[in-house]
Amino acid sequence: MLSKGLFSTYISSSLKCFSSSTSSVLKVGDILSYNRIFTSEDVLEYSKVSHDSNPLHFDSKLAQRAGFNGCLVHGLLVASMFPHIISSHYPGAIYVSQSLNFKLPVYVGEKIVGQVEAIELRENKKRYLAKFKTKCLRNGDELVLEGEARAILPVDFHSTNE
Amino acid sequence: MLSKGLFSTYISSSLKCFSSSTSSVLKVGDILSYNRIFTSEDVLEYSKVSHDSNPLHFDSKLAQRAGFNGCLVHGLLVASMFPHIISSHYPGAIYVSQSLNFKLPVYVGEKIVGQVEAIELRENKKRYLAKFKTKCLRNGDELVLEGEARAILPVDFHSTNE
Repeated sequence: MLSKGLFSTYISSSLKCFSSSTSSVLKVGDILSYNRIFTSEDVLEYSKVSHDSNPLHFDSKLAQRAGFNGCLVHGLLVASMFPHIISSHYPGAIYVSQSLNFKLPVYVGEKIVGQVEAIELRENKKRYLAKFKTKCLRNGDELVLEGEARAILPVDFHSTNE
Repeated sequence: MLSKGLFSTYISSSLKCFSSSTSSVLKVGDILSYNRIFTSEDVLEYSKVSHDSNPLHFDSKLAQRAGFNGCLVHGLLVASMFPHIISSHYPGAIYVSQSLNFKLPVYVGEKIVGQVEAIELRENKKRYLAKFKTKCLRNGDELVLEGEARAILPVDFHSTNE
């Protein structure tokens, strides 16, 4: 999340587009990804920590009456793949914003591919604001979740995983 | 989250504005809220289930070097208050979208007030799409997180907590 000072940096009109010729530094067009299969234990643990016990996540009959094939994984648990992807490559990254459009349900046991694509990089005083297109796919090409994220990357924003 | 069928309903241009004179049914202008103090155990448990181990949440020295007063609560954990609020009042609610702008950091031990205000209600074939203004405040009036959410409320969408 964003401190007051960093927020001022974020909205600063003096931010300049950043480009780099160094392959180990994030560049526009780079795609970071992570695969995950959510389990029923994940849904239970997430429900405990979020206090979100919507019966759609636990009552398969109710979920089926609502038109689903079974219990759903919490949407914000699926979305947590995005900050995980960004911060695992750029430890210390500060999340600024995230938009989320839930397109299709995610069920326990499905292989979900989370993708984060850098679409804009701006620099100001050695801070880097990165804008990402974020999406989750299942079965290769079914879009289940899409949106955009903005994050401030650490001053030394070389990926730790490259 | 949203099934294909429900998504068709969501984007249907035939959706009509819904108004109700029954006090127990959600109305535009209604505000639902929930208070929470996030603990270090919450941050640890959320980190486990989300796989998000950004050091900003665990390394206070690094967090301080980044301009914060201490370790941060994960932004999406704070945001989880919104679907919790909606689904605790309307069990079976289906999340359609959420936007999140992180304005200020949230630290362990701070009292956070989550608020969800109904700003639009549309009806189509006994399904109700609700649009909410969502925000989290600390110390009464400090805006730490804001955005909007859309959810499909159950056919019988009387609040269970009213």
